[in-house]
Amino acid sequence: MTRVAVIGADGMIGRKLVERLCADGAIAGTQITQLIVCDIRAPRMPVAPFTVTTLVGDMSNEINAEDLAAWQPEIVFHVAATFMGQADLDFSAGYRINFFTAYAAIDAIRRALPLAPPRFVYASSIGVYGPPFPDLIDDDYPAQPDSSYGTQKLMCEAIINDYSRLGFIDGIALRLPTIAIRPGPATHGNSGFFSNIIREPLEGRRALLPASTDVVHWIASPNSAVDYLLHAARLDTAKLGQQRALVMPGLAVSVTEQLQVLAEIGGSDALALIDRLDPPSYGRESFPRAFTAARALELGFRPSGQSFADIVAEFSAGDSAKAAS
Amino acid sequence: MTRVAVIGADGMIGRKLVERLCADGAIAGTQITQLIVCDIRAPRMPVAPFTVTTLVGDMSNEINAEDLAAWQPEIVFHVAATFMGQADLDFSAGYRINFFTAYAAIDAIRRALPLAPPRFVYASSIGVYGPPFPDLIDDDYPAQPDSSYGTQKLMCEAIINDYSRLGFIDGIALRLPTIAIRPGPATHGNSGFFSNIIREPLEGRRALLPASTDVVHWIASPNSAVDYLLHAARLDTAKLGQQRALVMPGLAVSVTEQLQVLAEIGGSDALALIDRLDPPSYGRESFPRAFTAARALELGFRPSGQSFADIVAEFSAGDSAKAAS
Repeated sequence: MTRVAVIGADGMIGRKLVERLCADGAIAGTQITQLIVCDIRAPRMPVAPFTVTTLVGDMSNEINAEDLAAWQPEIVFHVAATFMGQADLDFSAGYRINFFTAYAAIDAIRRALPLAPPRFVYASSIGVYGPPFPDLIDDDYPAQPDSSYGTQKLMCEAIINDYSRLGFIDGIALRLPTIAIRPGPATHGNSGFFSNIIREPLEGRRALLPASTDVVHWIASPNSAVDYLLHAARLDTAKLGQQRALVMPGLAVSVTEQLQVLAEIGGSDALALIDRLDPPSYGRESFPRAFTAARALELGFRPSGQSFADIVAEFSAGDSAKAAS
Repeated sequence: MTRVAVIGADGMIGRKLVERLCADGAIAGTQITQLIVCDIRAPRMPVAPFTVTTLVGDMSNEINAEDLAAWQPEIVFHVAATFMGQADLDFSAGYRINFFTAYAAIDAIRRALPLAPPRFVYASSIGVYGPPFPDLIDDDYPAQPDSSYGTQKLMCEAIINDYSRLGFIDGIALRLPTIAIRPGPATHGNSGFFSNIIREPLEGRRALLPASTDVVHWIASPNSAVDYLLHAARLDTAKLGQQRALVMPGLAVSVTEQLQVLAEIGGSDALALIDRLDPPSYGRESFPRAFTAARALELGFRPSGQSFADIVAEFSAGDSAKAAS
């Protein structure tokens, strides 16, 4: 018997998380009695075996955050965010969505629920790391963002650590790898191309590759992200110590490997739909390449796929427009 | 010809900074034409050789921050903060004063002064570091606060890095050592005792020592803090790179050394005014002990004293109630 809230329920990860919660009807071995879904737009809801409460509004607004806290959720998932590219293009929106929605929710919970601090599972990002990137980044490597997106995520992590230390929430922040293959329309700027160069050709559209083929990046599938969030909801947070943020496991995938898998699945026709930017905007040093994710692995976080081919298979089975149609 | 603003002008460091600016009449070799002093209370102003504009109000309020930005300051000093103890006791006030006053000012400047981003000198703190503390902390050691105060300072640093990267401000954040000897009444909680155990006995009052004598801590005098702020105002920030926050030089002073200096200056009478808490609340691992401060030293930041005796002499000459009377 538990009340669960999802902030950002209409986002890419939010929708997948809500689908899974509706399908499972339970979390951490406990039946869900109420799901509170929050977003700026009302999410399209699947059939749910529990009460669904919809809060539509700007969740950075204190009143909306208080409405959420008044439902006394026992588990809160915060998966509301703009893309990295959007946070850096629309500066004010980036801070509002990526920082103030989390701050408003966490502080409203502190004020409303002093005796029942909920588990607060926050979708952070490896975007908190900036260059230089060692070949393998361990859990002690300092986070030093080089984007507004990463700055906002790091600020949310700081607040989650502080509020958790004081017992106002029981927080955990997951530094998610870049999520690929993202369903839906192509996204532009920064790491969107890791999805675009697979999704678009497989669905018969052209895609721009703005990176050199030796680029390697840390990737996890949308299903892995949902698995991580659910695992975080039931984890013994006493094991986290003071640092409530941890890097999630992923796969270090090169663009070369991506194109090989694309060719294997879609053939040379698919490969011919790739337009290479010359000279490329991104080189080997542009992205973090690999993480040990040692703390997360020790705590039982496991990616759903073992290879990039697995990740593409997941997309083809569930998310591609062809699978949906 | 330059316009200078001081946010937190009635605080301990703010008052000393304003005194110095009034005495010098210039900064970075340029004559000051206007000084805008901001605080929740109107500061008592010394005679000033330039126009003084006073803004009294809660600087976390957006309207007040816009009033400040409308004066188009070319150099802004942000030295508004609660003590660490206060930020952790009065949680909301801590976030309001230590985070939102800086955020409001920086974002108001972004909106108002896109063509004239001011130098923004921010008083951060070694409170951004939490345990475990190595014997010597270098500039690469990750900041991981264990207090709300440190969290708020770290969030301000994150914003200063991001806004500076985008050219909205030209920011620099100084991680100041614990300031001792603080003038004025005794402060309680956390690091206040490093000042209390000197100031109080020298002025004939009892003082509580809540730490074991093997405690070592990183200390700078109030005058050093002002020197650092002024040096930061004229520094070539291109040398800072992406990380605009840096640890300031200080002295690693043990409580044993403090008591020796107290005995040398005040004799056994002064020493007899110390009450030792038994068992002590703080041990050797409670505080960061020493920093390389290598980046700051390379950039020309220099402490005013070479020993703890120098620091006490500075206090006796300028700040003690006896000197003032």
